[in-house]
Amino acid sequence: MTPTAISETRCWGWLMQLAELTEPERPWTRRAFTPLHAQGRKWLEARMRELGLTCAIDAAGNLIGRRAGKSGSGSIMIGSHSDTVAGGGRFDGIAGVIAGLEVAAALRDAGITLHHDLEIVDFLAEEPNDFGLSCIGSRGMAGALDDQMLERTNPQGVHLREGLASVGAHPPHVTPRRGDIAAFFELHIEQGPVLEDEGLDIGIVTHIVGIRRLALTFHGQAAHAGTTPLPLRQDALLGGARFITALRQVLEAERVSKPFVIATVGELRIAPNAANVIPGQAQLTVDLRSDSLAALSAWTERVRALALDAAAAARVQLSEFRVLSSSEPAACAPPLSGCLRSAAAALGLTQRDIVSGAGHDAAFLARVAPAAMVFVPSRAGLSHSAEEWTEPRELAQGIATLLHAVCLFDSGPNATSAGG
Amino acid sequence: MTPTAISETRCWGWLMQLAELTEPERPWTRRAFTPLHAQGRKWLEARMRELGLTCAIDAAGNLIGRRAGKSGSGSIMIGSHSDTVAGGGRFDGIAGVIAGLEVAAALRDAGITLHHDLEIVDFLAEEPNDFGLSCIGSRGMAGALDDQMLERTNPQGVHLREGLASVGAHPPHVTPRRGDIAAFFELHIEQGPVLEDEGLDIGIVTHIVGIRRLALTFHGQAAHAGTTPLPLRQDALLGGARFITALRQVLEAERVSKPFVIATVGELRIAPNAANVIPGQAQLTVDLRSDSLAALSAWTERVRALALDAAAAARVQLSEFRVLSSSEPAACAPPLSGCLRSAAAALGLTQRDIVSGAGHDAAFLARVAPAAMVFVPSRAGLSHSAEEWTEPRELAQGIATLLHAVCLFDSGPNATSAGG
Repeated sequence: MTPTAISETRCWGWLMQLAELTEPERPWTRRAFTPLHAQGRKWLEARMRELGLTCAIDAAGNLIGRRAGKSGSGSIMIGSHSDTVAGGGRFDGIAGVIAGLEVAAALRDAGITLHHDLEIVDFLAEEPNDFGLSCIGSRGMAGALDDQMLERTNPQGVHLREGLASVGAHPPHVTPRRGDIAAFFELHIEQGPVLEDEGLDIGIVTHIVGIRRLALTFHGQAAHAGTTPLPLRQDALLGGARFITALRQVLEAERVSKPFVIATVGELRIAPNAANVIPGQAQLTVDLRSDSLAALSAWTERVRALALDAAAAARVQLSEFRVLSSSEPAACAPPLSGCLRSAAAALGLTQRDIVSGAGHDAAFLARVAPAAMVFVPSRAGLSHSAEEWTEPRELAQGIATLLHAVCLFDSGPNATSAGG
Repeated sequence: MTPTAISETRCWGWLMQLAELTEPERPWTRRAFTPLHAQGRKWLEARMRELGLTCAIDAAGNLIGRRAGKSGSGSIMIGSHSDTVAGGGRFDGIAGVIAGLEVAAALRDAGITLHHDLEIVDFLAEEPNDFGLSCIGSRGMAGALDDQMLERTNPQGVHLREGLASVGAHPPHVTPRRGDIAAFFELHIEQGPVLEDEGLDIGIVTHIVGIRRLALTFHGQAAHAGTTPLPLRQDALLGGARFITALRQVLEAERVSKPFVIATVGELRIAPNAANVIPGQAQLTVDLRSDSLAALSAWTERVRALALDAAAAARVQLSEFRVLSSSEPAACAPPLSGCLRSAAAALGLTQRDIVSGAGHDAAFLARVAPAAMVFVPSRAGLSHSAEEWTEPRELAQGIATLLHAVCLFDSGPNATSAGG
């Protein structure tokens, strides 16, 4: 195999064709469980069949194109998701599905049959959707889609189980986990500015962060902005502002590369929110991410302490401190990451290790198989935006790295061992 | 005259009777230009007539009850407003109108006719209303209701001029200013916690603040909360939080009694306001108040400088800094305030001078006449709230002070001079 086995024109053409299947008024939108998403899958399935893959929808609604290997020693799986957020971009998820198609195409063009089975996957509903659950397909493949989740309903009262059936899946009560995947690879856009900022071609993901979403409420006393002297004010927004400022200061002061920790206040609502009234309440969320479970726990307490200090300084109460949601960090499999590093190096590409600050299907696959991710640059770090962009050359370099890594893995000492 | 001339029971009864004229679902609501407000005025007019006053609506829609004095040496006017905010209280404004009624009743009971004419006023629409203009009646009496204001429309497309006609006023193109008011007195609840906090009976208002409303926008870059490293973030909310914190610090550090300066961030909106997105925009208002016009100007620049510093520290832009509205401070007339101080002292009441941090009809009256205000305590400083409360005794003490001050003024050296 040589890098020239990848056709930049072909995979870019596919990406742009799939992008056209969008809600016309808000490009680029193809949300899971919509007719447009089904159209996208029909298009994907047609490409898979052209490449000689056999297609099926699994119990969790994932579209899988498969070609048998020479030795039946488990699967090498490549994939990501074709659904988008509303008004999202053409690359997030989609680039990873197209990468799988291009790897299958390049192998076919070169007349190569792998030792392992090859599976190209379009995971169902990685993005937030009407059932209020993301990564539905990869959860299912990891055996992490339980009965309670299958009973969730969308705003029309449809159960997720029925939603899955509507896309061709037939979930049992709890979806079975796959135990036959030797290696899972996912190519994704970085969704951040690091590779572009450092002028690098490739990011080798070492970990995918776990995320704690915290809800905080500062409770003071709404009062007249003109008649309440400073010493008698209980300004809830001041509590929130002191907290936001202090959180950033602590993050800046303690910035070290390991463990990776980042925290963001992205939501803030105050009441009564009137120009001439001192705010009586300020509600905010903290999005806390780390590649270390211990750090997530330690920083949850850290955030609480900072919030209590800020509340005390503003003479208000911290009336709520609640974990809204929690996901665990996932580690990429060093042997697979090693294959990606070697591949990038062999192709003369510049690279760095990177922690994925965003969640991905690979985080669920890592529960049942060795999993690894490769990032390509995102222009200006933009994602979940119509402005999302990666250059054709950058995408092709990522896919070439993926193809090489797959071949390295397939021919390596792991050639005959299935993961589990 | 003795303090006992005031009937606590009578004026409290009137206050509670008028309060009953409220929207039943959201007490206590009697907004200007509504049938309920007209009902309230009908009730007020009946009380005025019982007290022997002759009633009329002036060109600006104020209800005035009048009794001629002995010497025709201009008017002593007492009043406030009977309209409320939505879901407001039973005291804000109303206490001042009832105080006027009670003074008239006490004088009648004592068989006293003043040298000056006595006018009891219910000013029209002091609170925000559908025409987007507050203090309509007192503006008009001060000759400050111009043609542009009279052309304003409410959401139904009715012009203010027609609105005034509907309440019995007949405004010419620009309402004429009154030049015959020798003294204007307004009793009002403090709407703040100072008197209660210091355990005092009476506040003698020295100034009514001017208010600058400023709009600020911090503009950064919305970006992924997980994938954007600290040094590459342009977090608009961090800019806002740093500003709010710094503004408070400066206010605390420079707190002096003169000039009175207070600033409040009561409104804040961020975008996109999602838990996993770094805020790209933060819009807020600063409510800046002072009894000094020079201080208002100086602090406007101060606020701008603090905002620019906060924006720079957060690596975002201050993309908007705009004066939304501006009103000038007003000074109470020292001779009238002196009468109020002497009256409170004679009655054995505890008192302090105070700056009114809220706007009042008296601020407009001060443009055309000597004007003064007396404050009574507000429980917990609450106002514009159904919880608004002043004890019957506290209200009666305020009215007794007002009555005494009126008598002092009427019999003093000003007895024969009209203001203007």
